[in-house]
Amino acid sequence: MNNHVRPQRADSRHVPVDHAKVSFESGFWKSWHDTVRDVTVPTQYKRLDEEKFLEVLDFKSPPGPLARPIQPSGLSMQHFFDSDFGKWIEAASYMLKYRRDPDIEEKIDGIVARLEEGQLPDGYLNSWFIRREPENRWTNLRDLHEMYSMGHLLEGAIAYFEATGKRRFLEVMIRCVEHIIDTFGTEEGKLRGYDAHEEIEIALIKLYRLTGEEKYLKQASYFVDERGQTPSYYDAEARARGEEPDDYIFETYAYSQAHKPVREQEEVEGHAVRATYLFAAMTDLAHETADDSLRDALEKLFDHLTSKLLYVTGGIGSSKDNEGFTREFDLPNETAYAETCASVALGFWTYRMAQTRLDARYTDILELVAYNGALSGIARDGEHYFYENPLESHGQHRRWKWHYCPCCPTNIARFIASIGSYHYSTTETEIAVHLYSENAATVTVGARDVQLRQTTNYPWDAEITLQVDPEEPVEFGLCLRIPGWCRTPSVTVNGEEVALGPVTTNGYARIARTWSPGDTVKLQLPMPVERLYAHPDATENAGRVALKRGPVVYCVEEVDNGIAPQRLVLSSEDAIEADFRSDLLGGATVLHGPARSIDSGGWDGQLYSRTPPREVPATFTAVPYHLWANREAGGMLVWMMER
Amino acid sequence: MNNHVRPQRADSRHVPVDHAKVSFESGFWKSWHDTVRDVTVPTQYKRLDEEKFLEVLDFKSPPGPLARPIQPSGLSMQHFFDSDFGKWIEAASYMLKYRRDPDIEEKIDGIVARLEEGQLPDGYLNSWFIRREPENRWTNLRDLHEMYSMGHLLEGAIAYFEATGKRRFLEVMIRCVEHIIDTFGTEEGKLRGYDAHEEIEIALIKLYRLTGEEKYLKQASYFVDERGQTPSYYDAEARARGEEPDDYIFETYAYSQAHKPVREQEEVEGHAVRATYLFAAMTDLAHETADDSLRDALEKLFDHLTSKLLYVTGGIGSSKDNEGFTREFDLPNETAYAETCASVALGFWTYRMAQTRLDARYTDILELVAYNGALSGIARDGEHYFYENPLESHGQHRRWKWHYCPCCPTNIARFIASIGSYHYSTTETEIAVHLYSENAATVTVGARDVQLRQTTNYPWDAEITLQVDPEEPVEFGLCLRIPGWCRTPSVTVNGEEVALGPVTTNGYARIARTWSPGDTVKLQLPMPVERLYAHPDATENAGRVALKRGPVVYCVEEVDNGIAPQRLVLSSEDAIEADFRSDLLGGATVLHGPARSIDSGGWDGQLYSRTPPREVPATFTAVPYHLWANREAGGMLVWMMER
Repeated sequence: MNNHVRPQRADSRHVPVDHAKVSFESGFWKSWHDTVRDVTVPTQYKRLDEEKFLEVLDFKSPPGPLARPIQPSGLSMQHFFDSDFGKWIEAASYMLKYRRDPDIEEKIDGIVARLEEGQLPDGYLNSWFIRREPENRWTNLRDLHEMYSMGHLLEGAIAYFEATGKRRFLEVMIRCVEHIIDTFGTEEGKLRGYDAHEEIEIALIKLYRLTGEEKYLKQASYFVDERGQTPSYYDAEARARGEEPDDYIFETYAYSQAHKPVREQEEVEGHAVRATYLFAAMTDLAHETADDSLRDALEKLFDHLTSKLLYVTGGIGSSKDNEGFTREFDLPNETAYAETCASVALGFWTYRMAQTRLDARYTDILELVAYNGALSGIARDGEHYFYENPLESHGQHRRWKWHYCPCCPTNIARFIASIGSYHYSTTETEIAVHLYSENAATVTVGARDVQLRQTTNYPWDAEITLQVDPEEPVEFGLCLRIPGWCRTPSVTVNGEEVALGPVTTNGYARIARTWSPGDTVKLQLPMPVERLYAHPDATENAGRVALKRGPVVYCVEEVDNGIAPQRLVLSSEDAIEADFRSDLLGGATVLHGPARSIDSGGWDGQLYSRTPPREVPATFTAVPYHLWANREAGGMLVWMMER
Repeated sequence: MNNHVRPQRADSRHVPVDHAKVSFESGFWKSWHDTVRDVTVPTQYKRLDEEKFLEVLDFKSPPGPLARPIQPSGLSMQHFFDSDFGKWIEAASYMLKYRRDPDIEEKIDGIVARLEEGQLPDGYLNSWFIRREPENRWTNLRDLHEMYSMGHLLEGAIAYFEATGKRRFLEVMIRCVEHIIDTFGTEEGKLRGYDAHEEIEIALIKLYRLTGEEKYLKQASYFVDERGQTPSYYDAEARARGEEPDDYIFETYAYSQAHKPVREQEEVEGHAVRATYLFAAMTDLAHETADDSLRDALEKLFDHLTSKLLYVTGGIGSSKDNEGFTREFDLPNETAYAETCASVALGFWTYRMAQTRLDARYTDILELVAYNGALSGIARDGEHYFYENPLESHGQHRRWKWHYCPCCPTNIARFIASIGSYHYSTTETEIAVHLYSENAATVTVGARDVQLRQTTNYPWDAEITLQVDPEEPVEFGLCLRIPGWCRTPSVTVNGEEVALGPVTTNGYARIARTWSPGDTVKLQLPMPVERLYAHPDATENAGRVALKRGPVVYCVEEVDNGIAPQRLVLSSEDAIEADFRSDLLGGATVLHGPARSIDSGGWDGQLYSRTPPREVPATFTAVPYHLWANREAGGMLVWMMER
């Protein structure tokens, strides 16, 4: 490495403030953050060990029986166990950056030593192919996730290096990257391939940012640009394997966003995690290269996703069949796939979008997934998970200790571990505040350090006090995100009201002044309970209402209501109250109010009747969606009947 | 064969009137019946040929590439292609019994010749095992459907013999049955196995009824009695294959109703077709042996099914995962599996129940599937099919020309081809009329022939004229089914009102008298449009209504209404009209009336809103459920919103 300082740019594009500069001493994220460090990271290693994942790194032993059978696609989960190591190391490293931990580092160093031992002399590194079928490496980019796995290892290596300064893993992965560069590209003698599961692109850009080496950026650009070109690489590759391209089990390369060049894609299609990983990489490239053609495509894709395909919780990808998108407005509730990984990746993507242009449309989605559809993927105990995040249940959905395909646990872990990173970003002349939560941060603007401290019970309370303490008075624009859900925001600076209209652009109120130590900004983001209705074409929700308060989406659980929540009917007139309950799973605001319930009296032995069931007066209690399925099993519903 | 006349019994149990004694010269079933003969039977053979099914019978050639890959269960569809030949021959033979057809017979004879050629010297006959892995025959009854396939071949052989008098196929299959008897049983040296997919039991009882040979009945009894005994045969068999019984992919033998002895089963569980095939066999055994312990179990199972697990259409088995039953009241609409085969088998079972005891509870279900959940499995053109019969669609469900697993097309074909069989049954002193439709029948009661003729536009019209023409005056009880759905039935005999109360038992009005040529019975079964509501625990239907008129369940299709039917809201007060439309798919009664529709005006680009969508006045048109998806693609809904 010549240079591992991220290149500074003298333009208006925002650069995130590293998560380690943002600390949580109390408030909403503290307990999640602590849980990830103290429970999630150690128990995930334990699972990798006891579930025999680590055995794939026993390069000196002959491979044992398959931990997971080969799927009809040709893929087994074991093909990409490396990615689980990578994501686990990344999550652990984000925590190590706050506080070193010899025990965790020893475990990481152990994995790294085994990876290095297995790495081929030319740099190739994939535990499946090296141990089981080295002759077949790079013969099936369409199905077998080689570069996806390498990408996650590389992200882990970068995070581990940044946290500890240890270079070994990074060097292993740079050798692997050099091999990738030697293998794939438009140059004579190289393969014009790209991985069907995007990920390496994100990791390469991270490596570029770490090292300043243009070739990594160039390789990421190559992968993005080559995607979806014709004739398809996957067709040729299938024929070379003696297969008919038309026998592709997922039928269309849109499954991997490889059905047309990325700049021509206007609709979000295919596998949801793949799509959002690709969009994140495209956004990074647009950011680094100021490529407006990429930005234009991304805008269309963002609009399509958020106006046609997004669950109210921030979940995306409604179908299990392709783990992804189907038709517009197809948002079934009980069978929602809404994979945790996909919501996490949506957070990663939208946050990157806000770096290329400050716009609360993006960070509203980031906040939505952070408090809802991504966070629902991990239990309050930090060691049970959801892979799918349905919006309705009859009690059949319970959190898992480990997954058959455990991609989600490490993804939500790395998201929470790095939640600090999504709070602030800076340019030479601006500090942007994207997320509100109790935290303290050190931010650099115009080469001056500024201490920021948010004091708030957000997302449960509307009031945020933001103390701004530069080391000495300094002029900059403080850009405060005004959430799209808030109808009556107000801001004071040192007690003086700020007229938001004139200073607000794209959902950010820019307060430009010379900031002095002790300056105090107060935001009021009033959060009455809101009733949300879905577009009439989202017919699953016809006659139904979802409840939201501030950024938090609510659901009704059987455990609080004594009956299946599907039997509750809200009236459109009744008032709904919000109360903070400190005894609920670490403290949360619940909603409650009058309702009616469909009575089952008189139905014994009768499945259908000419007489409609009676409705009787009842009350309901709703809890934040992200907290569901943390207590006894039972039904759950986001979209309640309303008449 | 010593005897191929069905044994006569001198007791009160009913014996069905053979379908060939019941003819359809006009009316509802005529066009379906003609279509099955003229289109379905010939095109199904064409599919068997062009889809390479028949190739599995090329015993002299080495087996080619797999037509279907092996599933994780170890099963491929090809393992049971024989069953498709069996069911196709059975359906074709039912039609041959009305009218011989040299072309069809040549095709059947061709299949039979090839089966005979492949049959092993000991009688074993299964095209998969003989050609691919003869050494493994009878090593996996849990997964591989050997006797299921043999059972369907045997049913086909019996039907073909009865239609044509040709004995070759029957002899082939009797050799196979003798081999089964030699192989399985409680006797020393035999295996105590039974097929996990029930079917051979039904076929063996048919063979007993044809030949009078007790050993076939005894073998069926053995299979039924052995089922679910401990220790499990499937455990031992798995261990003998070197597998862990606990690795069973379906986890519980309840999947095959083999988790406990059949007489101890009180809840309907597992794979829906397997369950109903078993229950049909149990009913036949109860019928033949007057075994009350079987009847008691069947009563409980019938009650459980119909009060907890039955779709309003007569569909059963809500989940794709096990092709079967889940928890009670779990009746999702859009993801309903409700396999055509399962509804057909439910018809077979309930009709058998009515033979052991005349009770309209059973034949109401037979009628329900005949006009709804089974008939929906075949298109009006007679050559497209549904495997799954959902109660809601967003237009993604279209009928198939052929199936990956084509069990349903031949099953619905044999059901319609034999629909005559379900109309009447007799004892020495009674004639029961189970189904109403335009038809003419010759029935024997007390050794006297009686001509029956129903003149009616049923199920569209309420009036049925039943002419009773014995060859000479004869005394018998005419038992008329009074459908459970009918609130105000009335009957006249030669113009004189019959007081139904005193003569009606278990839903059958028994009119005992001396019947003379020209006697005329008129039934009025008034069928106003009924609104049906579901049990409150069937929460998918909360706030929803289904429309039914007589035996016919209705649905709303987008093609008639111009918008997704999920956006229609019925008022509970508005009147609903019924009109016969002769131009609709061969003629059918449609329902229509006022409604409101959820308007999508003003929603451009917005997926969620604080403002509920407007409801605007509209009208709706509903068509019989069995006719859905015969026109242009679009949404469909059985359970409409009602407020």
